[in-house]
Amino acid sequence: MNSQAAQNKSADDLGAFKAELVAVADATNATLDKLLPLVPGPENRVIEAMRYAALDGGKRLRPFLAVASGDLFDVPRARSLRAAAAVEMIHCYSLVHDDLPAMDDDDLRRGRPTVHKKFDEATAILAGDALLTEAFTVLADPATHPDGAVRANLVAELARASGVHGMVGGQMYDLRAAEVNPDDAGLKRLQNMKTGCIIAVACRMGAVLGGASPATVEALGQYGMDMGLAFQIADDVLDVESTAAETGKATGKDAAAGKATFVDRLGLEGAKNLAHSLVKQAGNHLAQFGNKANLLQQAAMFAVTRRN
Amino acid sequence: MNSQAAQNKSADDLGAFKAELVAVADATNATLDKLLPLVPGPENRVIEAMRYAALDGGKRLRPFLAVASGDLFDVPRARSLRAAAAVEMIHCYSLVHDDLPAMDDDDLRRGRPTVHKKFDEATAILAGDALLTEAFTVLADPATHPDGAVRANLVAELARASGVHGMVGGQMYDLRAAEVNPDDAGLKRLQNMKTGCIIAVACRMGAVLGGASPATVEALGQYGMDMGLAFQIADDVLDVESTAAETGKATGKDAAAGKATFVDRLGLEGAKNLAHSLVKQAGNHLAQFGNKANLLQQAAMFAVTRRN
Repeated sequence: MNSQAAQNKSADDLGAFKAELVAVADATNATLDKLLPLVPGPENRVIEAMRYAALDGGKRLRPFLAVASGDLFDVPRARSLRAAAAVEMIHCYSLVHDDLPAMDDDDLRRGRPTVHKKFDEATAILAGDALLTEAFTVLADPATHPDGAVRANLVAELARASGVHGMVGGQMYDLRAAEVNPDDAGLKRLQNMKTGCIIAVACRMGAVLGGASPATVEALGQYGMDMGLAFQIADDVLDVESTAAETGKATGKDAAAGKATFVDRLGLEGAKNLAHSLVKQAGNHLAQFGNKANLLQQAAMFAVTRRN
Repeated sequence: MNSQAAQNKSADDLGAFKAELVAVADATNATLDKLLPLVPGPENRVIEAMRYAALDGGKRLRPFLAVASGDLFDVPRARSLRAAAAVEMIHCYSLVHDDLPAMDDDDLRRGRPTVHKKFDEATAILAGDALLTEAFTVLADPATHPDGAVRANLVAELARASGVHGMVGGQMYDLRAAEVNPDDAGLKRLQNMKTGCIIAVACRMGAVLGGASPATVEALGQYGMDMGLAFQIADDVLDVESTAAETGKATGKDAAAGKATFVDRLGLEGAKNLAHSLVKQAGNHLAQFGNKANLLQQAAMFAVTRRN
């Protein structure tokens, strides 16, 4: 079986994962819908923008990871879906702010106008701020976990992954990449900060909710970090190979913006090979869970076989 | 003694408060300095911007309120100063984002270039995001309080006050004020959301750290809300009466922007009278603390007698 055939075979095996991804996406959407109720006042405009940004039919990979990690420890879905919603709020806020004219200046996201195009820049800034803030309201609520120490731990995890030593720092690094011209290790660090940290924390939060040991939380975090990097490399590959019609956003932008990617460094085939070896490495971190982690194994494979 | 003389007399009484305000400001600056360490990577640019925004010599009224409220319950300063730093990070992030071209478009803040003028817009957006995020990292850390439930409660308090039902909602409301044309009750609600919530939560957090009853937390919150509204009305008065040299920022901007203020509604004297009656009302919420709350009583008076 050649490499392409192996890849197709793997993709065929992802049926269970894909069904579960859709189920968790639906449950996440319902959770977000309840957590972001409209209000009668003039401030409602920002809630409309938050809902536009957060209820937009994304794949909900991060919520899936939070829920699937929680499932390993039999965490009630009512709890893990709140953590899932919180991490998705962070992800969605970052997209809203990244799309702003002063940042990546994108008009299109998942086939729809970006928030600042649909509303306006001020509303987009505020909607991002509010989604970021709301994530912590959700985690700190006793409905997420009866033990305050667990709630505080979830907040600490998500804030650390989202902040200057994680996602925001990665975005700053990315904006400076053309100037800094990072080596391969620097590029990996950039991607881990910008994308990996949030994917990893989704996995970690499921384990934290389940009262897992620090070593087990860390193993799931490493799984997430490796699959996150694979996911990002696959994104860069898609950016080169796909059309806007397939991905629902502008393509070829990385090259146009002079952004360093693993595709530049390693070529298309080299980047694909690295992504696949990261998927394998990600899977190794799940050894302790055996078959119970099959869906997470498939999620890692999906990260590099998806077409959008 | 006429009204002006009474005001001067009150101002003279504020010496103890003013000394304590400076002492807490110094301690807050030292705390923020430690909480925002520079790092070697390219993401350091955003930390520089965070430090520029957060270590800028503001009055630190909110930190003072968190610490003085904590003092009522003998909260160790090492803890209350962390809550103080967190609330100040939120305040500073809100200023950075409010100053952006898409929002209030201010070039000057406290006599210095605003963050997007000193750095650039993208860095200002990210620095605001990172300060907002860091506030929750600080609160969720066991150094803030050994009891996880208290930490989670602090996070819930600060997130609720900062989000769409508090500060961010107030900013949205404010941006739409010309269009919505709120009545006096609406204007009060706008100001309470935009400014009052964060001043109130500073007071509440000191009480939460001290294990105060919900009724006592609420009393301190009401004190903060009343003094916050007085503070905002005084700001509007200063906007009309002062020069940029005194306040360190552009003045007369509210009128130029067509923003509704209590000065428009009630005239200068009417607005000043309302502010003074709110100060009295704020003080009434402190009755249970007797002389122990003298500094907080003075803080409320200061809100309406300051010149910048």
